[in-house]
Amino acid sequence: MTGADPQPLDAERARAFLHQAARRVSDRVHRQIREDRRKLGEKTGIGADGTATRYIDQIAEDVLLEALNESDLPLDVLSEEAGHIDRGGTHTLVMDPIDGTRNATHHIPFYCVSLAIGRSSISDVEYALVRNIPTGEFYWARKGHGATLNGEPIRVRHSDPEELMVAAIFEEPTVERGFWGRPEHHVRDMGSSALEMALVASGSFDAFVCPFAFLRVIDIAASVLILREAGGQVFGADARPLDVPFDLKERTAVFALADPARLEAFL
Amino acid sequence: MTGADPQPLDAERARAFLHQAARRVSDRVHRQIREDRRKLGEKTGIGADGTATRYIDQIAEDVLLEALNESDLPLDVLSEEAGHIDRGGTHTLVMDPIDGTRNATHHIPFYCVSLAIGRSSISDVEYALVRNIPTGEFYWARKGHGATLNGEPIRVRHSDPEELMVAAIFEEPTVERGFWGRPEHHVRDMGSSALEMALVASGSFDAFVCPFAFLRVIDIAASVLILREAGGQVFGADARPLDVPFDLKERTAVFALADPARLEAFL
Repeated sequence: MTGADPQPLDAERARAFLHQAARRVSDRVHRQIREDRRKLGEKTGIGADGTATRYIDQIAEDVLLEALNESDLPLDVLSEEAGHIDRGGTHTLVMDPIDGTRNATHHIPFYCVSLAIGRSSISDVEYALVRNIPTGEFYWARKGHGATLNGEPIRVRHSDPEELMVAAIFEEPTVERGFWGRPEHHVRDMGSSALEMALVASGSFDAFVCPFAFLRVIDIAASVLILREAGGQVFGADARPLDVPFDLKERTAVFALADPARLEAFL
Repeated sequence: MTGADPQPLDAERARAFLHQAARRVSDRVHRQIREDRRKLGEKTGIGADGTATRYIDQIAEDVLLEALNESDLPLDVLSEEAGHIDRGGTHTLVMDPIDGTRNATHHIPFYCVSLAIGRSSISDVEYALVRNIPTGEFYWARKGHGATLNGEPIRVRHSDPEELMVAAIFEEPTVERGFWGRPEHHVRDMGSSALEMALVASGSFDAFVCPFAFLRVIDIAASVLILREAGGQVFGADARPLDVPFDLKERTAVFALADPARLEAFL
């Protein structure tokens, strides 16, 4: 996919495609909720990532692939259900059609569609879009051009050391670290990593933490760019800026921070 | 306030008032977000409950008191900021103008307005409304008449013992209980107790748990009725159905369950 003189994508067309595709997913999900919301959680098979595919994952991915087929952007695909699709593209669309599937199937209003375009790994992602489906809010970033929420520029927050807002995935390694128990920490586990990390970018959270190898590139590809463009940084378990190849089998820890100087407190 | 032959409220007027008042709070907050969302978190004083009053709490309470003054319902008030207001009423409007203030001031899209009408304690609440401000969804119950979400009847879910959705407030006593670590439990801490408990009523969560004396009557008065009318039950630390007087100084533990038979697992 990567050549000696790789062709760039048309920035305006990439932007328009991602915004339109995310909106189509959102519209499709809202229609399903109106028509028969119970169907969202039905199992329809096993995805390329080895986890059960739910009806909502399937309809969201179908909408995205349909949108891609109607466009002529030269994109391969890496997706939760379909895996890698070689379409002879110069770039790859890395997508999590529904991030926070369990929230969505249980009608907990906190989940999103996550879309990123890059070549081979997190570090070369050029475009990213995360759309909160229940509220319609959308996060966007283009590499080197900053990040926006609903079209307005966003920056990470200046932390108040007496009140740190932390999103985390609560499992044994998280609990052992004990940062949930510090009086200055207000900890949430909201069930959609892509959205929680985007909320670090927009100044809601000071950190999103998953201290064990759990997250896949499709979960984080978009939000990592959005956060970096908003002035934050994302680290792996080795305390170095995170990079993950476009490979569904890789699982990584994530320390996503508004203020990189706070990394120590979470490792 | 309670007499030998207490006057009942007009049910239709109580219903209309609560729906309209909650919508006015929501409209006011959305307008503030459009105009200057950073102002939402400014401290404006100390409320009757002893915690800092934020600008969003103040504007939400002001809107509610204004709506009440325009109506002629015979209601006293118990509220987070204003405390108890004796208006010579036969009933009391128990309100948390913003439940999940910290989410709201940090622009984490999960918070609500919580309104209940009763006489003297949780057990005699007759009307309840919880409105999710970011999404516009509203939960409603009238004692003995069931509960609805956006006007559609709701019931608690039949639990899948292999996948229990649990909302909890994560502090030391919660972590010590260890239910976050059981493989069948998917635990969330989303930061708005009233909304998390309403989500038990609508079948999203199997349980909402706060195992230490923390919640106030204003946080829970509405959602307890909504959950009971949807077929669930709410217990205190003594494993008996919860009752709490209309008193801001009381703090209680809460075990709110879709299936009361599961109480043992959380106590």
